[in-house]
Amino acid sequence: MGDDEHTVFIGGKPFMNYVTGVVMQFTTQSANEIVIKARGKFISRAVDIAEVATKRFLENQVSVQDIKIDSEEFKNKEGRQVRVSTIEIILKKTK
Amino acid sequence: MGDDEHTVFIGGKPFMNYVTGVVMQFTTQSANEIVIKARGKFISRAVDIAEVATKRFLENQVSVQDIKIDSEEFKNKEGRQVRVSTIEIILKKTK
Repeated sequence: MGDDEHTVFIGGKPFMNYVTGVVMQFTTQSANEIVIKARGKFISRAVDIAEVATKRFLENQVSVQDIKIDSEEFKNKEGRQVRVSTIEIILKKTK
Repeated sequence: MGDDEHTVFIGGKPFMNYVTGVVMQFTTQSANEIVIKARGKFISRAVDIAEVATKRFLENQVSVQDIKIDSEEFKNKEGRQVRVSTIEIILKKTK
């Protein structure tokens, strides 16, 4: 799933940190493709970040190439099996 | 974007209502394709519902066919232009 160098994990930092991170990787680090990844409640945020980056900052330069959703199962602190959803949004330069 | 009859809009109702709604449309209303739609903070929930429906209840019968994200712009109560992200998750019978 792509180069880790060009993966952005979405968490609780300020929204624009992530948008700037994505935009900068395309513009100053000449990335061709970036994968935005998030889990659980941060999935909505990942979509917002992809939308703002591609439509407000990189219009006609970068677009959504693919979107994948999946689940991860793990044991929580109490030893219960829990499931969390994940998303990967692949952004790609259009030329 | 498909038949409205087979569209499920995700909001604040109990989680399992939506999962059951999706599963029932496939099993008792013989839908071939269902579109799960959500906006803003409900996007994470839409992904959870798609994952639980396809992996826990309809495994090997229904899978994610396509995922689309987009933005809607509208004026809020104060007259300010605001943007909200949207998602459409298309589920399809595998046979």
